[in-house]
Amino acid sequence: MKKKINIGLFGYGCVGQGFYKVLQQSPNTNAVITKIVVKDKSKSRDLPVQQFYYQPSDILLDNNIDTVVELIDDANAAYDIVKSALKLGKNVVSANKKLIAEHLDELIELANTQQVTFLYEASVCASIPIIRNIEDYFKSDHIQGFQGICNGTTNYILSRTAQGLTYDKALSEAQELGFAESDPTLDVDGFDAKYKLAILLKHVFGVSAKPEDIFNCGIRHIKPAHVNFADNYEGKLKLYSYAKQVEDKVIGFVAPFVVPLSHPNYNVENEFNAVNINAKFAHEQLFQGRGAGSVPTASAVLSDVQAFQTGYKYDYSSTKYNDNTFTNDFYLKIVLSAHDESSLDAIKFEHTAYSEVEGKLAFKVGWVYFRNLIKVDFNSRSNMFFAVISEDFKLRLSEVEHAVGEALV
Amino acid sequence: MKKKINIGLFGYGCVGQGFYKVLQQSPNTNAVITKIVVKDKSKSRDLPVQQFYYQPSDILLDNNIDTVVELIDDANAAYDIVKSALKLGKNVVSANKKLIAEHLDELIELANTQQVTFLYEASVCASIPIIRNIEDYFKSDHIQGFQGICNGTTNYILSRTAQGLTYDKALSEAQELGFAESDPTLDVDGFDAKYKLAILLKHVFGVSAKPEDIFNCGIRHIKPAHVNFADNYEGKLKLYSYAKQVEDKVIGFVAPFVVPLSHPNYNVENEFNAVNINAKFAHEQLFQGRGAGSVPTASAVLSDVQAFQTGYKYDYSSTKYNDNTFTNDFYLKIVLSAHDESSLDAIKFEHTAYSEVEGKLAFKVGWVYFRNLIKVDFNSRSNMFFAVISEDFKLRLSEVEHAVGEALV
Ligand SMILES: NC(=O)c1ccc[n+]([C@@H]2O[C@H](COP(=O)([O-])OP(=O)(O)OC[C@H]3O[C@@H](n4cnc5c(N)ncnc54)[C@H](OP(=O)(O)O)[C@@H]3O)[C@@H](O)[C@H]2O)c1
Ligand SMILES: NC(=O)c1ccc[n+]([C@@H]2O[C@H](COP(=O)([O-])OP(=O)(O)OC[C@H]3O[C@@H](n4cnc5c(N)ncnc54)[C@H](OP(=O)(O)O)[C@@H]3O)[C@@H](O)[C@H]2O)c1
Repeated sequence: MKKKINIGLFGYGCVGQGFYKVLQQSPNTNAVITKIVVKDKSKSRDLPVQQFYYQPSDILLDNNIDTVVELIDDANAAYDIVKSALKLGKNVVSANKKLIAEHLDELIELANTQQVTFLYEASVCASIPIIRNIEDYFKSDHIQGFQGICNGTTNYILSRTAQGLTYDKALSEAQELGFAESDPTLDVDGFDAKYKLAILLKHVFGVSAKPEDIFNCGIRHIKPAHVNFADNYEGKLKLYSYAKQVEDKVIGFVAPFVVPLSHPNYNVENEFNAVNINAKFAHEQLFQGRGAGSVPTASAVLSDVQAFQTGYKYDYSSTKYNDNTFTNDFYLKIVLSAHDESSLDAIKFEHTAYSEVEGKLAFKVGWVYFRNLIKVDFNSRSNMFFAVISEDFKLRLSEVEHAVGEALV
Repeated sequence: MKKKINIGLFGYGCVGQGFYKVLQQSPNTNAVITKIVVKDKSKSRDLPVQQFYYQPSDILLDNNIDTVVELIDDANAAYDIVKSALKLGKNVVSANKKLIAEHLDELIELANTQQVTFLYEASVCASIPIIRNIEDYFKSDHIQGFQGICNGTTNYILSRTAQGLTYDKALSEAQELGFAESDPTLDVDGFDAKYKLAILLKHVFGVSAKPEDIFNCGIRHIKPAHVNFADNYEGKLKLYSYAKQVEDKVIGFVAPFVVPLSHPNYNVENEFNAVNINAKFAHEQLFQGRGAGSVPTASAVLSDVQAFQTGYKYDYSSTKYNDNTFTNDFYLKIVLSAHDESSLDAIKFEHTAYSEVEGKLAFKVGWVYFRNLIKVDFNSRSNMFFAVISEDFKLRLSEVEHAVGEALV
């Protein structure tokens, strides 16, 4: 007989309500929600008022509650809640990617010290079991990189712009459909995708990179001409949470990529999320599913709760065996575009394959040093846009020259 | 420190050699291959001859060997080997879908009695962790059906026929590339896909269906006109290992389906395998990867070996909680085609949406009773072909009439 789990639930919004619902429909999961803590006393709810509490301590100091499920939308408050819960010896499930990306190492250590378990599958691509597969099944393989489409809002917008809509029209459509917030900054500028990337970097490569050290450029300034450019490359623009091992270094960033027709991610459309991993033995593996939504997200939370019953923990084996260093010191091949040719000079090209003016936009294709690229705050430069056009990254300028030389032969 | 695993390996062919290689490249897996048993004494090998043995007992009766990895191509010999190994208290990994599909219940029971573990991830879609995800992560969800592209040979052929090649041309191309055997019967007639379906039926629905009770129709008789038909439906033909829960019944069979553009499987091309599962909470989840090949298949074998070290076992929880009955008593919507109109009469249509003659082929679209359909041995009828055109299955004729009525309104 499985041990009964007594849950204290923080948050009863989109995911919290979904979790309540899926648990009700899962009689074989021996778990009950004992208390729910929310913020706003005046809100009307679809459950009896006696089930709701308003002080974190109502759950945290309740000794009957062994498990905290944290599903609030405030990362700072969530940090206090999760830390206290772990300190008080409770297992914790969270879906809060911002909280986790910012404090993962501290929370892992705290959980270890307290001999409790901290799981957070829903924080990366919601329903897709990506963390679990990296931790368990692919532990015996060697993941060399991944291409994640980890933000449904931007993927929806990119699908629609590829079909001919302007960015503004696609964004308001996404908002009408509930895929985008009224302030879409976190999504369209790539912050949400970056939090997920930071979490994956830890599980795949054992790398602890703070969000502020990871570059993110979103899709806010995409124009039809950029869509056409990708099209001419037989590709589509996708916002990637990208990482790759290059020798003993790990590179990772969020940016638009031109994804070629032959890549499994090429067909990941609309609000879907996907992560394609490149494993040494298993080769490409694509995981595609819903990266948001009340019930799909809650399914991952439920799976974590169920995992407590079998004593499951993340192993973080990549931390044990890998000695990877995160770096922004590398060269990559991009297409840069700007409203006027002189703006292109904001970034030094180590090698220019070609440049051209198409309609009102100037384009330049070639190799740049990543540290030079990320000096530019693309999210706030409405006249500029770039996309990565190759997954061939070089640590040294001499290798760029070699690659360019080879291409010319 | 993980317990050291001493492996006795049966078979040193495509997968066996791959497994030897990946284990060598996995210093963190505390496992060694102690002995290898093969059949042909005269074959030259890339390892010293002292490593090879020719009697199963050389491994089976060796008390230092705690784990048998069975990677031979003879399902009958494999049955004896696996059964003996389990009886002698050894853990077993196998990639042999035919063996497993035919004897799963007996082997599960034997492993239980002997308190040993039997794992076989590589048997279904090779590198794709589909069994593990069903068993673990989605245990807390409720899988209501799946669409599997579980045979790389046929998927490659279908991709190429969709691009305009004839079946014969596509098949010989697949043979040249090493994707198809010189006798392709097991693949192109859907037997291989059926073995995998039988294994998935057990894990997803707790259903024990013998291969001989599962219908399989392959793609041997596909013509360009069938490709065109699918195209007119905005679809592509895919050979599905298909299963779905309909009320308290489970249906499952192997047949060509017209897969619509909107389905995640639509873009699974060439030799790739994929399984799309429909979960109640998580909704659609696509797993795509390599369904064959020396090293990718071996990656799954290695992952199973590694799983022994953490005491992992399949839980077969679907068997515990579900009370599903496998049935062939249902109605479905198909397109049937034949060289002459009269051959179409071989199958009774409960309702005909339309029929037409296009070039040299006669087509009929409508609802048929599955038991009537499977009376015809399509694999041996070169003048006939059918494909399923909807995932709407009905247990009762009255529901078919209702659906037809609705469609007419
Ligand atoms: N929505 C998705 O599809 C999705 C997918 C993956 C991950 N997530 C993550 O899941 C979490 C929840 O998202 P959501 O969409 O469910 O948010 P939401 O709909 O905005 O709901 C937030 C809930 O948190 C409660 N809350 C906020 N601050 C609180 C505090 N200090 N103390 C107690 N309760 C507090 C709110 O209380 P009131 O009800 O009183 O306002 C509300 O019930 C977030 O971390 C999000 O990033 C969401
Ligand atoms: N190939 C794939 O991509 C793939 C993918 C998934 C699953 N599988 C499954 O993996 C298994 C192995 O396939 P494979 O492609 O590696 O086959 P293979 O290349 O034909 O190799 C078969 C091996 O089995 C040995 N063998 C055959 N009968 C034997 C017996 N009675 N006793 C001992 N050894 C015996 C052969 O010995 P000799 O060397 O002496 O001839 C040979 O080494 C099959 O069950 C297959 O269905 C294969």
